[in-house]
Amino acid sequence: MLAPVPDVQINEALRAVAARPRIDEVYFVACGGSYALMLPNQYVMDREAGDIAGFAINAAEFNRRAPKRLGPDSVVILCSHSGNTPETVEAAQFARSRGALTIALTHAPGSPLDEAADHTLVYSHAPLTMSAEHSAAILYRLTFGILASREGNKKASSLATALDALPRFVETAIAQSAGHIADFAEGHKREQVIYTMGSGPSYGVAYSYAICILQEMQWVHSAAIHAGEYFHGPFEITDFDVPFIVLIGLGETRSIDERALAFARKYSKRLTVLDARDLGLEKLPAEVREYLAPLAFSPLLRAYAEALADAKGHPLSVRRYMWRMDY
Amino acid sequence: MLAPVPDVQINEALRAVAARPRIDEVYFVACGGSYALMLPNQYVMDREAGDIAGFAINAAEFNRRAPKRLGPDSVVILCSHSGNTPETVEAAQFARSRGALTIALTHAPGSPLDEAADHTLVYSHAPLTMSAEHSAAILYRLTFGILASREGNKKASSLATALDALPRFVETAIAQSAGHIADFAEGHKREQVIYTMGSGPSYGVAYSYAICILQEMQWVHSAAIHAGEYFHGPFEITDFDVPFIVLIGLGETRSIDERALAFARKYSKRLTVLDARDLGLEKLPAEVREYLAPLAFSPLLRAYAEALADAKGHPLSVRRYMWRMDY
Repeated sequence: MLAPVPDVQINEALRAVAARPRIDEVYFVACGGSYALMLPNQYVMDREAGDIAGFAINAAEFNRRAPKRLGPDSVVILCSHSGNTPETVEAAQFARSRGALTIALTHAPGSPLDEAADHTLVYSHAPLTMSAEHSAAILYRLTFGILASREGNKKASSLATALDALPRFVETAIAQSAGHIADFAEGHKREQVIYTMGSGPSYGVAYSYAICILQEMQWVHSAAIHAGEYFHGPFEITDFDVPFIVLIGLGETRSIDERALAFARKYSKRLTVLDARDLGLEKLPAEVREYLAPLAFSPLLRAYAEALADAKGHPLSVRRYMWRMDY
Repeated sequence: MLAPVPDVQINEALRAVAARPRIDEVYFVACGGSYALMLPNQYVMDREAGDIAGFAINAAEFNRRAPKRLGPDSVVILCSHSGNTPETVEAAQFARSRGALTIALTHAPGSPLDEAADHTLVYSHAPLTMSAEHSAAILYRLTFGILASREGNKKASSLATALDALPRFVETAIAQSAGHIADFAEGHKREQVIYTMGSGPSYGVAYSYAICILQEMQWVHSAAIHAGEYFHGPFEITDFDVPFIVLIGLGETRSIDERALAFARKYSKRLTVLDARDLGLEKLPAEVREYLAPLAFSPLLRAYAEALADAKGHPLSVRRYMWRMDY
């Protein structure tokens, strides 16, 4: 059997990582939903890397901030679904001009981002499912691959085991949540504001849901609240009629999520809680399972989004500005 | 004349920084409004530091994420106004247990954070003004002091010149904005949602205004939108009646702000724009002025907040949960 294309591409990129005399930092650079996918990778770097620094950053900010450290000892990982995002293409060009090793993820081979980067990994796109070939999974495989190559991190095989098991957990979770999803959609179809909340590796999913699903695709006001920031400002807007989608992860940051949830439960009657434990994710290999929660939340939340879109009569594909004009 | 207390304290902390055999990274750790003050310092580190990595992070997230790099080669800068924030006190204790050098900012000498940290800098608090003894200014003095000590960065004297000049710019800006401030307050007193937007060194002020002023002190729904993220989701909620407070900074990231503003102007009739150029900040020393914009925006925005609070009959001091119960 031939290896799937991403395996070949990942291995090729990792050979280039291994060939560099020195790697001091990894920049994870993208915009919007792709930027959100980068955030858990900075989390992994902070948790796992003894020497290499990890930074997730919006591509426009990266280009103008122009980190002084960026150079031949840097790896820059970029992602754009269309491969056309101008800021991300510029980031790849800028990073290469500084001598950094650039690795791009995209759904569009042959796109400007593919052309601009040293290496390209092409991912699968099917938002109601998860697999080892989805963008979020490929990013983790790359991050743990870099950690293995440069620092001898041993968790790549546990990650592979977990990614093999994950699709079935996601399928089961969506099937078993049918009732909750229908209630959410009907109960939230007239809401003007819906907050999301999460921490640790799941904060990125909360952020993505707020800006890409609620604001962009549903024209619902939203903000992603970091559960650790909740008590330092945002919790004052909690009230019986203020809706929150709360993500409860696994591992070290779970206690942050639980503390926020315990408070929100007292004062809001409009909570939608997704708990990684309820999805059975504690059965995944212990040393990586905290990282997998967002990869299950993401397709499950997409099912919530599709039902909400149906109930509102506002398809997720509708835009008023995006792709319809110059900006 | 005796030197002001912060100078003595900053110099003592910087002597401890200089005494470390090696410094690989600076963590900027706090919660809420104090965390927001840390964000421009990561920006400075990214722009100015050739070797040292900078990370701004919420204190609860820092404690649970427990960065593997954290150790004797790390400086951890913490801030809590009351000196009582449990997560931040825990962060100081945790960082010291790893051997890091801890430097705390607080308004409360003798507080638990003061006790927990190796060094403490006590700052002035007067939200309608700015000075070299305000928390945001002391943080910059510390950051540039570390850069001078470890990497020979030469901008500390330009920073001092700029901080000397800044109080008058702020005073003038608030006086000259009286009409705009009154119009904003009257025009927004019934708004349920007000967004803020910024990028680069000013993103932290946008964030702080969203979570501490609008959500916490005014119970108005809000989110800070990074101007570089605006076009990748959030801009779809723009409409004629959706209010935004837009911060236009100086320096490299100004073009990000201007692009977002140009779009928002077309589709919203409810923009409040604060432009660092209109405040005369281009007269500050060129090599540091981009960093100073948030230090002018912050007190000016406070004047907007006080007027809004008056118009709403909802004083900034009112809380329903904070300090009123256990959480």
